[in-house]
Amino acid sequence: MSVIYDRVALIGLGLIASSMALAMKRGGLAGEIVGTARSKETRNAALEIGFCDRVTETAREAVKGADLVVLCVPVGAMGVVAKEIGPHLKAGATVSDVGSVKAAVIEAVAPHLPDDVHFVPGHPLAGTEHSGPHSGFAELFDNRWCLLVPVPGSKPDAVAKLRALWEGIGAHVDEMDPEHHDLVLAVTSHTPHLIAYTMVGVADDLRRVTDGEVIKYSAAGFRDFTRIAASDPTMWRDVFLTNKDATLEILGRFTEELFALQRAIRTGDGDHLHDYFTRTRAIRRGIIEAGQDTAAPDFGRGGGTRK
Amino acid sequence: MSVIYDRVALIGLGLIASSMALAMKRGGLAGEIVGTARSKETRNAALEIGFCDRVTETAREAVKGADLVVLCVPVGAMGVVAKEIGPHLKAGATVSDVGSVKAAVIEAVAPHLPDDVHFVPGHPLAGTEHSGPHSGFAELFDNRWCLLVPVPGSKPDAVAKLRALWEGIGAHVDEMDPEHHDLVLAVTSHTPHLIAYTMVGVADDLRRVTDGEVIKYSAAGFRDFTRIAASDPTMWRDVFLTNKDATLEILGRFTEELFALQRAIRTGDGDHLHDYFTRTRAIRRGIIEAGQDTAAPDFGRGGGTRK
Repeated sequence: MSVIYDRVALIGLGLIASSMALAMKRGGLAGEIVGTARSKETRNAALEIGFCDRVTETAREAVKGADLVVLCVPVGAMGVVAKEIGPHLKAGATVSDVGSVKAAVIEAVAPHLPDDVHFVPGHPLAGTEHSGPHSGFAELFDNRWCLLVPVPGSKPDAVAKLRALWEGIGAHVDEMDPEHHDLVLAVTSHTPHLIAYTMVGVADDLRRVTDGEVIKYSAAGFRDFTRIAASDPTMWRDVFLTNKDATLEILGRFTEELFALQRAIRTGDGDHLHDYFTRTRAIRRGIIEAGQDTAAPDFGRGGGTRK
Repeated sequence: MSVIYDRVALIGLGLIASSMALAMKRGGLAGEIVGTARSKETRNAALEIGFCDRVTETAREAVKGADLVVLCVPVGAMGVVAKEIGPHLKAGATVSDVGSVKAAVIEAVAPHLPDDVHFVPGHPLAGTEHSGPHSGFAELFDNRWCLLVPVPGSKPDAVAKLRALWEGIGAHVDEMDPEHHDLVLAVTSHTPHLIAYTMVGVADDLRRVTDGEVIKYSAAGFRDFTRIAASDPTMWRDVFLTNKDATLEILGRFTEELFALQRAIRTGDGDHLHDYFTRTRAIRRGIIEAGQDTAAPDFGRGGGTRK
C-alpha cells in the first residue's frame, strides 16, 4: 500500500487513535503522524510506544499543515476542539472524527470549520473495554465496519480518500446519514451498553447477595455483561447525553419487551418464552456467519471443544 | 486420582453430562459411566464419542446398580425422571442433579426418592451457548464453581464424596441453601440471560433498523449479548418458570435502576451517569482477579494487544 495522506493529525490519543496510528504505520498509509493529547503522560506514551512521529502540546499546533485531522476525543469535547483548531487548518484539509454519535458531533463541529476544509464525519465500530494510549493495537479494525457520514457539501473526492484510508487500516466502509447512524447505534451499541451498566450496577447494589458471590459465580452468565460495562465512563456519559432521543426510543422498546417476558414468567406462559428464546438464536448465527464474532464456544475463553 | 464411584449413571446427555463424563474419564473418577437420553441419536453419539461406556434406552435401566445418579435434564423434566427411577435405585446410592434452580427441583424430586438413597442436589456454574452431546469438553468445569445444596437428611459422607467428585472434575465446591442459591443465580445468571434475550429480541424486531444492519454492526457492543441469548430455549424456559419469584424480584430491581439512568439521560444529569459507569468497572476487575474471566481485551476475540 502507499501513502494516502502526507500528514495526519490525531487529536486525542486513546484506544482508537493509537490503534489507527498503528494500523496506518502497518500499511504505510501516512507520511507523518502527529498527535496531541491534554496529558503530558499520554503524549510521552505515544512517542515511547512509537505510534506518533511527533507530538505537540496543543491541538492548534498539531493540525498545522495536516492533510487529515481526526478528532479522537469524547463526543462532548468535539465542539471545543473544533473551535480551537478551526483557524489553524490547512486549506483543502479533511477533518474527520471517530465519535459514536453523529448528529450531535456534526452540530458541534461544523460551525467552526472554514469553508475550504472538507468535513467527513466517521465512526469505526470497534473497541475493547480498555482505554488509553497503551491499549491500542494495529488489528483492532481488521474486518470491522467503519461508517462514514458525509454532510451536505462533503466532496466525493474527500470521502473517497478517507474511505481508502479506512480500507487500508483493515475496515469495511459503509456510508449512512447521521440520523440513521444514531438509531442503528442506539440498537447495536448504546442501549446494550446502558443495559450492561445497569445489570452490573444492580448486582453490585444488592444487600442480600454479596459482591464476593457475584464475582465468584459470574461464569453463569453475568460476566458477559461486565466487559462492556468496564468501558470508559466519560466516553459513555457523552454518548448518552448526545444521543438522547434514539437511546430513549430504543430503551422504551426494550422495556416493553421486557415487561412482556416478565408477564409470561408471572403467568407461567412457557410457550411464549420458548418461542422468544428460539428466535434469538438465529441472530447469533448471522453474526458468526458475517465474521463479526468468534464461533468458539464461550468466546473461546479457554477450554476447547472436544473437537 | 482414583475411582470415587464404581458406577455413575447420567440421565440426559447434553453439554453438562457429556462434559462431566469426559472430565470423569480424564481423572479416572468413575469405574463405569452409563448414560441414557430420550433420543436414539443422542445415545448413539455418546457411544461413538466414547464418553459413556454403556447406554440404555430408559432411565430406569440406567440407574440399576449405580452408586451415583446425576439428573442432567431440563429443570421441568426432573420430577418425571425422579418418579421413573425412584423404585429402581440401589440402596445407599446418591442422587444428584445439575439443574440451574434448586428449590423447585428439590420439591419435584425428593418425594420420589426412597429413604435409603442420599439426595444431594448440585449446580455446576459453567456452560457455553452450545448444547447437545457433541458440545461437551473435559475442561468445561476447570476452575469454575459447583454449588452443592444439601437437603435436610443429606448425609455428610455422601456430600463429601460428591464434593470429591466435583473437585476431581476440576471445579471448586461451595455449599449453599436452596433459597439463597436461587437468589444468587437470579442475579448472576437468570436475569442476565433474560435481559440478553430481550435485547436481542428488540434488535430483531425493529422495522427501522434491519437485521442485516444489526448483524453487520454488532461489534459495537451488541454481539456480547448474543452469546448467552443463543442458549438452549427449553432449559431456559424451565429456569424462568421454576425460579419465578427470585427472577421477578431481581427484574424489579433492574427496572428501577434502568429507570433512574433513563431519567438521568432525559434530564442531562452527566454526573449521575459518570459515577454509575465508574462504579461498575470495579466489578469487572474483581472477576478478572478471581480468575473467572479472561483479561484479554475483547475476550481475546482475536487481535492481540500491542505487546
